[in-house]
Amino acid sequence: MKIWDKGIAVDKKIEQFTVGRDRELDLYLAQFDVQASRAQANMLAGAGLISDGENQQLQQGLQELAAQLEAGSFIIGEDFEDVHSKIEYYLTEKFGDAGKKIHTARSRNDQVLTAIQLFLKDYLERAGARTLELVEVLLQKAEAHQHDLMPGYTHFQAAMPSSFGLWFSAYAEHLLLDLALFEAAHTVADQNPLGSGAGFGSSFPIDRLQTTREMGFGNLAVSSVGAQMLRGKTEKTVAFALAGMAATLAKMAYDLVLYNGQDMAFVELPAAFTTGSSIMPHKKNPDVFELIRARCNALQALPNTLMLATSNLPSGYHRDFQILKEILFEPMTQFLDILDIVLFALPQVRIKPNLLHQAKYDAVFTVENINQLIQAGTPFRTAYKQVGEAVENGTYVPHQQFQTTHLGSIHNLGLVEIRAKVARFRAGSRLSSGE
Amino acid sequence: MKIWDKGIAVDKKIEQFTVGRDRELDLYLAQFDVQASRAQANMLAGAGLISDGENQQLQQGLQELAAQLEAGSFIIGEDFEDVHSKIEYYLTEKFGDAGKKIHTARSRNDQVLTAIQLFLKDYLERAGARTLELVEVLLQKAEAHQHDLMPGYTHFQAAMPSSFGLWFSAYAEHLLLDLALFEAAHTVADQNPLGSGAGFGSSFPIDRLQTTREMGFGNLAVSSVGAQMLRGKTEKTVAFALAGMAATLAKMAYDLVLYNGQDMAFVELPAAFTTGSSIMPHKKNPDVFELIRARCNALQALPNTLMLATSNLPSGYHRDFQILKEILFEPMTQFLDILDIVLFALPQVRIKPNLLHQAKYDAVFTVENINQLIQAGTPFRTAYKQVGEAVENGTYVPHQQFQTTHLGSIHNLGLVEIRAKVARFRAGSRLSSGE
Amino acid sequence: MKIWDKGIAVDKKIEQFTVGRDRELDLYLAQFDVQASRAQANMLAGAGLISDGENQQLQQGLQELAAQLEAGSFIIGEDFEDVHSKIEYYLTEKFGDAGKKIHTARSRNDQVLTAIQLFLKDYLERAGARTLELVEVLLQKAEAHQHDLMPGYTHFQAAMPSSFGLWFSAYAEHLLLDLALFEAAHTVADQNPLGSGAGFGSSFPIDRLQTTREMGFGNLAVSSVGAQMLRGKTEKTVAFALAGMAATLAKMAYDLVLYNGQDMAFVELPAAFTTGSSIMPHKKNPDVFELIRARCNALQALPNTLMLATSNLPSGYHRDFQILKEILFEPMTQFLDILDIVLFALPQVRIKPNLLHQAKYDAVFTVENINQLIQAGTPFRTAYKQVGEAVENGTYVPHQQFQTTHLGSIHNLGLVEIRAKVARFRAGSRLSSGE
Amino acid sequence: MKIWDKGIAVDKKIEQFTVGRDRELDLYLAQFDVQASRAQANMLAGAGLISDGENQQLQQGLQELAAQLEAGSFIIGEDFEDVHSKIEYYLTEKFGDAGKKIHTARSRNDQVLTAIQLFLKDYLERAGARTLELVEVLLQKAEAHQHDLMPGYTHFQAAMPSSFGLWFSAYAEHLLLDLALFEAAHTVADQNPLGSGAGFGSSFPIDRLQTTREMGFGNLAVSSVGAQMLRGKTEKTVAFALAGMAATLAKMAYDLVLYNGQDMAFVELPAAFTTGSSIMPHKKNPDVFELIRARCNALQALPNTLMLATSNLPSGYHRDFQILKEILFEPMTQFLDILDIVLFALPQVRIKPNLLHQAKYDAVFTVENINQLIQAGTPFRTAYKQVGEAVENGTYVPHQQFQTTHLGSIHNLGLVEIRAKVARFRAGSRLSSGE
Repeated sequence: MKIWDKGIAVDKKIEQFTVGRDRELDLYLAQFDVQASRAQANMLAGAGLISDGENQQLQQGLQELAAQLEAGSFIIGEDFEDVHSKIEYYLTEKFGDAGKKIHTARSRNDQVLTAIQLFLKDYLERAGARTLELVEVLLQKAEAHQHDLMPGYTHFQAAMPSSFGLWFSAYAEHLLLDLALFEAAHTVADQNPLGSGAGFGSSFPIDRLQTTREMGFGNLAVSSVGAQMLRGKTEKTVAFALAGMAATLAKMAYDLVLYNGQDMAFVELPAAFTTGSSIMPHKKNPDVFELIRARCNALQALPNTLMLATSNLPSGYHRDFQILKEILFEPMTQFLDILDIVLFALPQVRIKPNLLHQAKYDAVFTVENINQLIQAGTPFRTAYKQVGEAVENGTYVPHQQFQTTHLGSIHNLGLVEIRAKVARFRAGSRLSSGE
Repeated sequence: MKIWDKGIAVDKKIEQFTVGRDRELDLYLAQFDVQASRAQANMLAGAGLISDGENQQLQQGLQELAAQLEAGSFIIGEDFEDVHSKIEYYLTEKFGDAGKKIHTARSRNDQVLTAIQLFLKDYLERAGARTLELVEVLLQKAEAHQHDLMPGYTHFQAAMPSSFGLWFSAYAEHLLLDLALFEAAHTVADQNPLGSGAGFGSSFPIDRLQTTREMGFGNLAVSSVGAQMLRGKTEKTVAFALAGMAATLAKMAYDLVLYNGQDMAFVELPAAFTTGSSIMPHKKNPDVFELIRARCNALQALPNTLMLATSNLPSGYHRDFQILKEILFEPMTQFLDILDIVLFALPQVRIKPNLLHQAKYDAVFTVENINQLIQAGTPFRTAYKQVGEAVENGTYVPHQQFQTTHLGSIHNLGLVEIRAKVARFRAGSRLSSGE
Repeated sequence: MKIWDKGIAVDKKIEQFTVGRDRELDLYLAQFDVQASRAQANMLAGAGLISDGENQQLQQGLQELAAQLEAGSFIIGEDFEDVHSKIEYYLTEKFGDAGKKIHTARSRNDQVLTAIQLFLKDYLERAGARTLELVEVLLQKAEAHQHDLMPGYTHFQAAMPSSFGLWFSAYAEHLLLDLALFEAAHTVADQNPLGSGAGFGSSFPIDRLQTTREMGFGNLAVSSVGAQMLRGKTEKTVAFALAGMAATLAKMAYDLVLYNGQDMAFVELPAAFTTGSSIMPHKKNPDVFELIRARCNALQALPNTLMLATSNLPSGYHRDFQILKEILFEPMTQFLDILDIVLFALPQVRIKPNLLHQAKYDAVFTVENINQLIQAGTPFRTAYKQVGEAVENGTYVPHQQFQTTHLGSIHNLGLVEIRAKVARFRAGSRLSSGE
Repeated sequence: MKIWDKGIAVDKKIEQFTVGRDRELDLYLAQFDVQASRAQANMLAGAGLISDGENQQLQQGLQELAAQLEAGSFIIGEDFEDVHSKIEYYLTEKFGDAGKKIHTARSRNDQVLTAIQLFLKDYLERAGARTLELVEVLLQKAEAHQHDLMPGYTHFQAAMPSSFGLWFSAYAEHLLLDLALFEAAHTVADQNPLGSGAGFGSSFPIDRLQTTREMGFGNLAVSSVGAQMLRGKTEKTVAFALAGMAATLAKMAYDLVLYNGQDMAFVELPAAFTTGSSIMPHKKNPDVFELIRARCNALQALPNTLMLATSNLPSGYHRDFQILKEILFEPMTQFLDILDIVLFALPQVRIKPNLLHQAKYDAVFTVENINQLIQAGTPFRTAYKQVGEAVENGTYVPHQQFQTTHLGSIHNLGLVEIRAKVARFRAGSRLSSGE
């Protein structure tokens, strides 16, 4: 049943192509469409557009659907093109005209958009909470491994002494920073488009501030034309957020893949995490982290895919927007899976001790040799030349004893300061209010 | 002069390739490198790593360079590979060992990164302020044209009555929303990396909180490894912000290009804005808006270009980061030019009156006909069928008198509410504090 | 069953994450893995690495699997991580040691790669054939509508007289041109990697030219290191081909969406192709063409997604390559669906007659007025000014009678020449040899 | 001077924005615009549209301009918006009406497009020739280093014995394969659009086959509408070609950056190629190869940038196309620079001998141990388990003596077969005919 049906059969082939995977993807939206429909009905009753009795029926029907969703018994059958038709059909079957009235002063356009906004907002809050868990795990690992030194690399070359404390806390700070994009996406998702109709409002005396409050939106997308322009924009902003954090996770995974090889050999992965080769029995491949890297790299492509699908469309609704669900929803779930796997795998990575005792890393101490000379009065550039010549001549002796004091250095990780950043974020962010 | 020079000639061809366009692009960074160097020298003096006399010399030299920059007389000659070598050379020529000491406890890596952070932060504040000007212009236009109706389109088809009031205020709200990404980018740019050295800190007893305060950074990038990982990330987040707003401006330009054609003919561009055809004398092409659209579309590609240039690099500095300046800096300037052109052109676009009096737009009133029936007691779905049949049979008479009341509708633009959003943004944003 | 199993349990969660959607996606590859395995077994027998009896068993088993595939009864159960394990297990269950020997001198890496090469090559041939069908349909439409004039647009403005003959033949030529990228992708897919093992060859005395011939590959990927580097490259080249043609189809769909609106109203879509609005009964939305456009735009993002997933990986196999199947295989199928829908829908689009009789299109004849003046001796630039002034003054009278003669103009479409191009392509292309 | 000037001043600001960098970028096109104008004039004379005397004047003027271009004395002054105005002005100044007639039956649209097609075609031929030089260098290096073994890596782990012979020949084969995309781009660039005017042909009796022959195009873009649709498509196809080959070069550079680190240490770069660190005197950073990698990665973003700038534009010319020159032309030059640097640097990379004598690489011989067991009659899977257990128990003794025989293996590089592929390419390609 298509609600816009005017009695002319749409060719089967065409229908299949246009409906696409909507029935499947709309399951992501179902609970939010129910939530928005309840707010809509309450508002219609408040505005005198439906009677209180009608509203009670609608609330009851929608509560039943919510219960079905909770119980996993809600199904969008082949007869329906999407979740919205299904819900309206349910109400109409049950309550007749009252059911039909739920769509008063509402269009499919603002209805779908509202459900998407609610869904994305909720997702960002959940993903944000998960991220903060991971930040905490990383800070604990940083503390636990603050004395485990490792060579720090630049240009793929061992450069200076570093530590796993610095490495873990780096990723903690970066994931926290990545939440700035989640916050931005949340700001965009937190605009209520309900009541904008097909994108040009309506002549019904509806109360858009009431639905804004009832659904918990922070803001009303005031201009009806502007409300409709959220379609595609919220999705893209969410994709920016995922892409940003995916880049951080991909970098972490890349590090671990490198650190797991025989050449660096800084970490050891539990046997259960590695997979073998069909012909080389000695291999313990770090497939989990390679796949985290690959999936995170693919996630970085999401904003671009959304842009290509929506750029150069003038204002107003276009059917093109439908495929944004296909592009975005499954990768969103996949991203949560990645966070889970990282949360699960990271604590089990074994850090190897005493890495800097290997002769091949002697040169990472040249900066310490220079600093020693400077503290004895040699100007920097002169000390630099002296040590450089010693390395060249083979007379270099590494200065392995050193002590750092500044915030963010090997012997002063500044974990207190980082935790203070986390606390400030939690206090100031609408994102984490949902926890 | 390359400060890492160890006496071995680097082949000319190689040098040219590796230096690239740094001399030119570093001009964007010069003032910020001077600013950061002053903070560095003050901090070194505070920590007792240089004498107060040396610091006075350095402050004087850096002030001279700042004056040269202000006066436009600062030049990075062919002898220098970048701005940083030039500045250090100037100080060393002038003050000998004191000049050499400016680089104590600093590496090229954190030096460049600090200048980039400051530059991008400043840029975001300036672009943000310009955007808020444009928002104000759009709100004024919305008010001025609140009674100018136009057909609202969906699926490239005239759908319902709309107005230029809704159209202008839509873009005002969206530009304001786009600032959420600017805010996120500002958060990332607002982290002080100075003191992280080559990415692993140093054993000098430096005070990173002092430089953070002196340069006006909101936060310290604590972990030295994490500080270095900002390279590429801040640029990409800025690119997300530009891409986001560029999409909004491209959509606006697309609308205007369409509205300017003979078929829609909703607006008229001043003759001075249009260009002609080399063979068709009747053409008045909307090139300005076509080029805004095209440039904004190209700007949307920036995040992806940055991602491709930096993805799959493990943590730590790589020379690859150098080309991010090439990719990002000129488009950033171009984006400001676009904002300027829009600010200049938009007020001059002439809106045509009485667009809905044309018979070809009669059908946009079907929703009003339906609403009239509903208010007379017909259920929505029934009214929908009736009006649909009237259109089909040619018996349809448009219901052109209508009155909307809800926020964000034709007769209630909600400009007060939108201005309140703008005010809340100004109050809460670090971004606009720079105004 | 994992063939690299060494007895250590891989954590369930990890396994699920690493196997991903392989079981499902490998169905695309099954028949090609069977084909390659048959060639492998024959070659091993020829090289004396297995006995003729063993080869007969393997051939029989593989034939059985081919029959199961043909019949749709082949299933990759939960016990198998991929199609390759399943096939090897089947052979080993049935023939014991002979089954195990199929993997002699072969690695999972070259095995998977060979199946992918064969699959992509076959796909390109099928998609190429379908494209040539569509070219033919377009040429027939061009011929049928050669006298149906329409305004030609530049800058979204009516510019000069054009025709549906020119429009249809334009797309015919472009789809033919797009096959150049299919040809390039075919060249890359037409390299046999079998025998390259894990990417470094083997010490078995295998005959790679024999398997090349038997599987119908045009070339051997000689260097084993290079053979392995095909992974990702062939996929990306196929994505370039799809993206190229998708751009053409998206443009065609965009034209039709515009032409279907009330403003231009150049075409009419059968009622069965359009869908309605949930609130506006007059709407007949061109959803099919909007969705073709959107899907084709999303297809244009494919190369970039593949690049992001694979760039900055050094030579040699990485598990990251596994997700290329996820990224590419379903969109490939979707692209064939799009070709089908276009082939189905295009012939049913109704072209409206006499479009240029509308006064609003008078100005499209200015070029004809100018040409008339030129033929009467006025220099071009002078004529241009005269006609321009007439338009400006309102004294312009369109010169509607005109006759074109050159190839590719309204009255001389050059369909014979275009068909000759098609014939040359068919004759010279390896791509179309499969028809 | 703008040739479409109708006497109304275009605002200075607008003009600057719309002209953009055309004057600079059009220098790439100047010689090709001269070449096309000569063909145009000859054809006009042949068709009787200008007199032979006029044609002689035009040919003389155009030859003068060609000479200026050759001599580097050609300048597009501030008075001209582009190269085309400049050339036409030169001819008109010199020959009066004859000069004005060069634009008969031509529009700016087909004129620019023709120059771009010629430019891109020429570029592809030159870049193709340079690539074939590099292929030859790689094959020579492969031969020279066929006995230099190295560990072959999968999953960033040492896997099996490999050799620099295999490595160099891999890249030779891949660059050759990458030329398939150059060939495809050449096919698209090899279509003559001249005579298609503004995209809808003209009523002049022009002979488009004559200009096709005279300019050396392989084909005529027949449909005038289709001819115009080449704008953007040819650029994008060239970008696909550059992106494809850039990926190969980036991978090679990535390998070399890794191989140059202390951990792998497979190669040594001449001191002249490396740059130092401002604080670490021991560093010899492989900046050249890092920058090749970065630039090649950025080149991979080109197709996407072009797509975003042009997708969702209906058929017909749009001013948006102007910025494609900005996006594409400089990276094209940069790509030639990269090829030059690679040709210059690669021969100087020093390969380190005896890499496999290091104990840390013992495990790469497990496959050889297995093969020995197989040849002694053990089934593959059994041998695999035995050797795997030996590695696990520490009882493993590497089987370092081995001999490969198959094509593409360590001891049989198949360079003859690869050279035969090169020869077949040279014989069959239009691309290399220009050499």
